[in-house]
Amino acid sequence: MIPSEDFVVTDRGGIVENRHRVHAAVVDAKGRLLYALGDPTRLTLARSAAKPAQALAILETNGVERYGFDDADLALMCASHSSEERHIAQTRTMLSKIQAEEADLRCGGHPSLSESVNRSWIKQDYTPTAVCSNCSGKHVGMIAGARAIGAGAENYHLPDHPMQLIVKRTVAELCDLDPQDVEWGIDGCNLPTPAFPLDRLARLYAKLASAADRGEGHEDLSTRDAALARIFQAMARYPELVAGEGRYCTVLMRAFDGAMIGKLGADASYAIGVRVSDDTRRLGADGALGISVKIEDGNIEILYAVLTEILEQLGIGSPECRNPLAEFHHPKRVNTMGVTTGGVSFPFKLRGSKPDGEHSSPAALTR
Amino acid sequence: MIPSEDFVVTDRGGIVENRHRVHAAVVDAKGRLLYALGDPTRLTLARSAAKPAQALAILETNGVERYGFDDADLALMCASHSSEERHIAQTRTMLSKIQAEEADLRCGGHPSLSESVNRSWIKQDYTPTAVCSNCSGKHVGMIAGARAIGAGAENYHLPDHPMQLIVKRTVAELCDLDPQDVEWGIDGCNLPTPAFPLDRLARLYAKLASAADRGEGHEDLSTRDAALARIFQAMARYPELVAGEGRYCTVLMRAFDGAMIGKLGADASYAIGVRVSDDTRRLGADGALGISVKIEDGNIEILYAVLTEILEQLGIGSPECRNPLAEFHHPKRVNTMGVTTGGVSFPFKLRGSKPDGEHSSPAALTR
Repeated sequence: MIPSEDFVVTDRGGIVENRHRVHAAVVDAKGRLLYALGDPTRLTLARSAAKPAQALAILETNGVERYGFDDADLALMCASHSSEERHIAQTRTMLSKIQAEEADLRCGGHPSLSESVNRSWIKQDYTPTAVCSNCSGKHVGMIAGARAIGAGAENYHLPDHPMQLIVKRTVAELCDLDPQDVEWGIDGCNLPTPAFPLDRLARLYAKLASAADRGEGHEDLSTRDAALARIFQAMARYPELVAGEGRYCTVLMRAFDGAMIGKLGADASYAIGVRVSDDTRRLGADGALGISVKIEDGNIEILYAVLTEILEQLGIGSPECRNPLAEFHHPKRVNTMGVTTGGVSFPFKLRGSKPDGEHSSPAALTR
Repeated sequence: MIPSEDFVVTDRGGIVENRHRVHAAVVDAKGRLLYALGDPTRLTLARSAAKPAQALAILETNGVERYGFDDADLALMCASHSSEERHIAQTRTMLSKIQAEEADLRCGGHPSLSESVNRSWIKQDYTPTAVCSNCSGKHVGMIAGARAIGAGAENYHLPDHPMQLIVKRTVAELCDLDPQDVEWGIDGCNLPTPAFPLDRLARLYAKLASAADRGEGHEDLSTRDAALARIFQAMARYPELVAGEGRYCTVLMRAFDGAMIGKLGADASYAIGVRVSDDTRRLGADGALGISVKIEDGNIEILYAVLTEILEQLGIGSPECRNPLAEFHHPKRVNTMGVTTGGVSFPFKLRGSKPDGEHSSPAALTR
């Protein structure tokens, strides 16, 4: 499949205002690339979309069981939360479970991802601290993991800390890559963050969904698959902990009610895992489905519009099911007097990838 | 000149995070294209970068003289101000000069372009209204112009109002285009906003700078050139009114102290007018210089970085002169713990355009 130039366009009165380049990969549980936009193998910093993989590394240290973390805690480990009071309170509870202090966290505070939380902070002259970090759950989890493997927890965030070496191995395994084929930068929260081809991110989420599928029918799940299934279920069960009120991840997972998980990464990366359904079968998937998207310029409003457009083009879920996402799909472009000035359009079609090289669009597959 | 794909790149630990496509045109007072990035003829919504042209239309109605507007008022007509107290106070003074009320304005309030103003508004539970609009000066000016031509001012903002028909003609003339070759959308402030090839925006600003040049030496200036010179001087003299404390336009015009004007348009368009100097002559300009830039995805942080890089590549002003722009040129990429995570780089060189088709880079022309 040759990378194409796929764009989202915003207009003002029909005149092109901005264009945003889009990359996407749709793969099945076997890792087969079914559909694509732009360059589906673009080397992409997954940022917080990698959190379920980092959570798996923590789970596999036995840190979760040892410290009595429940599925809500696991959901918060996978979260980029809005620093709502419930998120901060749960972070404090998690810290108490490992008998650690806020000062043990190696992340810092930042403005909330929620505008309304920010407004209330400003009104109260409140300066956010480490427990408010949208990544707070992951950080508590990393301390728990570091202790569970008997490593000092003080520098749990450094790239060569034993806990991070486990994370690196785990991420590579989930991506079916050699560890040296995964690159690493430093994230906004100060933990290492991986970069790998975009379709591998979709594969990772297909594995999460696939494990959830198999978790229900079979009892001979591997330990890893059981852990992956637990992460999927934790995120799907606590969508309000994974993001927050009104946020895309939360609205998406509520709308799909256990059939799908979705997770944002900063600078507009995203991944979705879809459990087996008539929709995934119609799309030719062997098992569950993974979808990953990156907006080349990091625009998150455009990312949410694209994700919703892709779900519509793929026909995943009924229109009624996707209805709560309508405002993300077609963000209102109104001016300060309430006049509509333009819109967002999607002059792209997902390209199908058939083994014989024949390309098809999912429109041809619609019910 | 064939459009090229020119990008700004942000990285995290050396890994490409985002890419932003750049378009730029550098022209001289004769309208000759000297240097370019991307597609210098990209049809571009000028947004607020068109305000000096709108101000010219107002000046030519005699509304400025009739109502006793001074050069500070003229600067505010050209502004996308930060809604600081001085901007709102001056808007009210301008309204009193035309004996109009805030309710006569056809723009609405919006969050300030200044983060610190926003914070103070939130703390005071203040809801911004029309006088706070970053375009308030332009709107008062349009009412003055509408009255000066004897047209009812109530619907001064509508595309077919006589005042807007004058604006349309004036914009086309400044761009050396037929009126039908300029397209129009509705702006955030509810006034019509023009779209035309990007190099024509540079031409418009070269004309402003050129008029300022000739305004000093010659006494036989045309009425229009005298008006253009006055607009240039008003913006250069009151940079704090054109934007606000810490904003790029203000910092730029303060740094260049009368030698240059610069104006932002929403969604990352920008234009600069440079008066004749050794620098403009070295670059091969016949008279003053105009520079216009559009970031394809509308990212304003990237726009400011690109503008500063272009000034450096062209060698306009000394490094000391450009020093106040350093933080815009290389925006800090630090995480919540103060660790530098990456940077912004400019893997492009302005392409020169010679009549014989030979391309050169400004580096070859440096002093």
